[in-house]
Amino acid sequence: MSPVGATDATHDPALESWVPSANAPGDFPLQNLPFGVFRRKGTSEEFRGGVAIGDQVLDLAALAARTPFTGPAAAGLALAAQPSLNALMGAGAAPRRALRVALSQALRRGAPLAAAADCLLVPQAHAELDMPARVGDFTDFYASIHHATAVGRLFRPDNPLLPNYKWIPIAYHGRASSIRVSGVDFPRPRGQLKPAGDAPPVLGATQRLDYELELGVYVGAGSIPGAAVPLREAEDHLFGMCLLNDWSARDVQAWEYQPLGPFLAKNFATTVSPWVVTLEALAPFRTALRRPDGEPAPLPYLDGPENRSGAFDIGLEVWLETATMRRAGRPAVRLSHSSFADSWWTAAQMLTHHSVNGCKLRPGDLLGTGTQSGPAPQEAGSLLELTRGGREPLELGDGESRTFLEDGDRVILRGGCERPGVRHIGFGEASATVLPALPA
Amino acid sequence: MSPVGATDATHDPALESWVPSANAPGDFPLQNLPFGVFRRKGTSEEFRGGVAIGDQVLDLAALAARTPFTGPAAAGLALAAQPSLNALMGAGAAPRRALRVALSQALRRGAPLAAAADCLLVPQAHAELDMPARVGDFTDFYASIHHATAVGRLFRPDNPLLPNYKWIPIAYHGRASSIRVSGVDFPRPRGQLKPAGDAPPVLGATQRLDYELELGVYVGAGSIPGAAVPLREAEDHLFGMCLLNDWSARDVQAWEYQPLGPFLAKNFATTVSPWVVTLEALAPFRTALRRPDGEPAPLPYLDGPENRSGAFDIGLEVWLETATMRRAGRPAVRLSHSSFADSWWTAAQMLTHHSVNGCKLRPGDLLGTGTQSGPAPQEAGSLLELTRGGREPLELGDGESRTFLEDGDRVILRGGCERPGVRHIGFGEASATVLPALPA
Repeated sequence: MSPVGATDATHDPALESWVPSANAPGDFPLQNLPFGVFRRKGTSEEFRGGVAIGDQVLDLAALAARTPFTGPAAAGLALAAQPSLNALMGAGAAPRRALRVALSQALRRGAPLAAAADCLLVPQAHAELDMPARVGDFTDFYASIHHATAVGRLFRPDNPLLPNYKWIPIAYHGRASSIRVSGVDFPRPRGQLKPAGDAPPVLGATQRLDYELELGVYVGAGSIPGAAVPLREAEDHLFGMCLLNDWSARDVQAWEYQPLGPFLAKNFATTVSPWVVTLEALAPFRTALRRPDGEPAPLPYLDGPENRSGAFDIGLEVWLETATMRRAGRPAVRLSHSSFADSWWTAAQMLTHHSVNGCKLRPGDLLGTGTQSGPAPQEAGSLLELTRGGREPLELGDGESRTFLEDGDRVILRGGCERPGVRHIGFGEASATVLPALPA
Repeated sequence: MSPVGATDATHDPALESWVPSANAPGDFPLQNLPFGVFRRKGTSEEFRGGVAIGDQVLDLAALAARTPFTGPAAAGLALAAQPSLNALMGAGAAPRRALRVALSQALRRGAPLAAAADCLLVPQAHAELDMPARVGDFTDFYASIHHATAVGRLFRPDNPLLPNYKWIPIAYHGRASSIRVSGVDFPRPRGQLKPAGDAPPVLGATQRLDYELELGVYVGAGSIPGAAVPLREAEDHLFGMCLLNDWSARDVQAWEYQPLGPFLAKNFATTVSPWVVTLEALAPFRTALRRPDGEPAPLPYLDGPENRSGAFDIGLEVWLETATMRRAGRPAVRLSHSSFADSWWTAAQMLTHHSVNGCKLRPGDLLGTGTQSGPAPQEAGSLLELTRGGREPLELGDGESRTFLEDGDRVILRGGCERPGVRHIGFGEASATVLPALPA
């Protein structure tokens, strides 16, 4: 794979930070600088913007009070210090990029800001992270052809992939009010379940609770109602990415989803990682949109030179920690891994398609990529796929197995980018634990 | 039909107002008092809450400045005077009801407030109306069995109604960012259109643009994540209703909607009427949920004595004004009419179902009822139904006809309640004009 993204000095792998933990292997080296929103744990401080650096959070409100930057970087810092990142997102790429360069310089080994470390850094272990933005609308795509094919095969063995799939970035609207930051647990949802045969449906706790391994993409600058965003401008409207778990109740989904799509099967909880990795940090991991020979080219509005570097090679992983593992002190087990580079559509194509009818996009809107499954069966991003619809239990070791999730299961999504000669860029994690259903 | 809703003195048809136009026939008598958000047209004043009375708007910010009320009514007034109704909605039914009673008394003929009319009233003709609330999430139901059957028949003549329909209040999430108040026109949307046969899809302006005649229901007090709202408490979480046009591009919809439901076919524009008619104003028009003999009872969580008065007999109408009619000075023509009393599900059932999985509902969330079609073919709430999928053009008189909407067409939804011995309660209108598609 030959990356084609433009990189700059902020990606130099030789650069080290005056924050020592940033120089050790980890998700948040000086080359990453993801944005989030935090306060000190156990306090009622106002939430404010922060940047992850090593195992610390750089407090952007405290930094802004020192007025260290000028010009666009200062403007970006003032926006990034607020209690949500919506304003920074809405300002477009210029202040974000200027701020990134200024932060990279200020956090570099030898920079004078090191003298103020005590006033500016909060250990991540002592930080409470909030949703990075107020999400106006949440759209979930279906961009992995491997996922679409595997799920389609369970329902339509002879015709797994629908005729529109290769042409349309298929998507539906999800629930903004149910998006929670990593660490917020939730009870097993109830819903209508349909027994086999003629028996009427019953209300009950889902018996087929699943996760979905996705990336989330935050919209930056908004769009104008009625006006489409051309593909060549699409990335100007993207801010950055996070991990996203689109928890799904498969039994509820099977009974409810015709003809208008998933609803209660997916709107009870969606978990996102707290740190938003910017498109700038991901630049070294750009790659070309992959289409096997013989596949149709995208329609002209979704095609262009942008697709040669519009994909991102982001490794994604699902880990499971059961209650038994926690009690026994055993570590979580990895269930699968995949790469966003295998996606049928790029994030830019998703945004352009979303706007082609004039739909208004707002800063902080969240686009889910849909479950990212790879071409191999063990690269599947959901239990539905890994267990063949629940027919083949997954062995977890020590006698445990799963078809779908049980109470007490903690699902952890992890993600990051690797390439020789470049520092690892990590996403942190998105995790939550399934609690028992509440009494009816 | 025997209404079973509790009414109080505010419904007394003998009551008249010191606002003369409220006593003439019209949508907004003293017995209605719907809430909205407005400012004087052509100014940059702050938007603030208002109540429609006759052809006037009662300025609630100006009223609040006079501190005319005490207790819960004063608390309600302070919330209702704000630039959006979210706070009033979130406060639940008590302050809204107290405010309604106080406003009914203050606007009554002979009340001392009449002396301040000049300071408190703005003619509706001079008012700019805004969205009454910030909509966090928009959910669109599919609650008319007549619509579901008619649409299903077009796609599946032998099996029009899916097996889940009579059990589940089917719904999907729509787009909050595209909801516009009446009067905001929009360009004809583009999208992928699939020619017949093996030809690949093309990008083009929709050729099958349609309206959908719906009611919108605003959520009042929110719900707790993870906790279902029992049916007996559902109406405590409902604020009031408006008219809602869920504009739909049928050709885009047909190609995109499998397997995740409608997306770009419906998220380019949704038009709502500006005045929110409260559940209290609608009390005289309550009626029982209608279920023909032999139909299954709702599952227990959707069943209860509440269903005996949970439906509302609200008459709904669609009118069309073409560009030709405007040029010729001819009035709009009525295309169809129906009643929300024919809905398969009540608004309370929709809300309870929505929350049964723990989905969080927030004040100002909007629930669409789905297209309200009546049992007779001419009571259909969309052109898709009225023209049998575009096969039977609708004659408009003077040589004009329509299968789907043309540029320049203005669609006007109207609605209201009638019952002998009770004052008419109207909804005003929700209208917008289809503009030509923007250049690609």
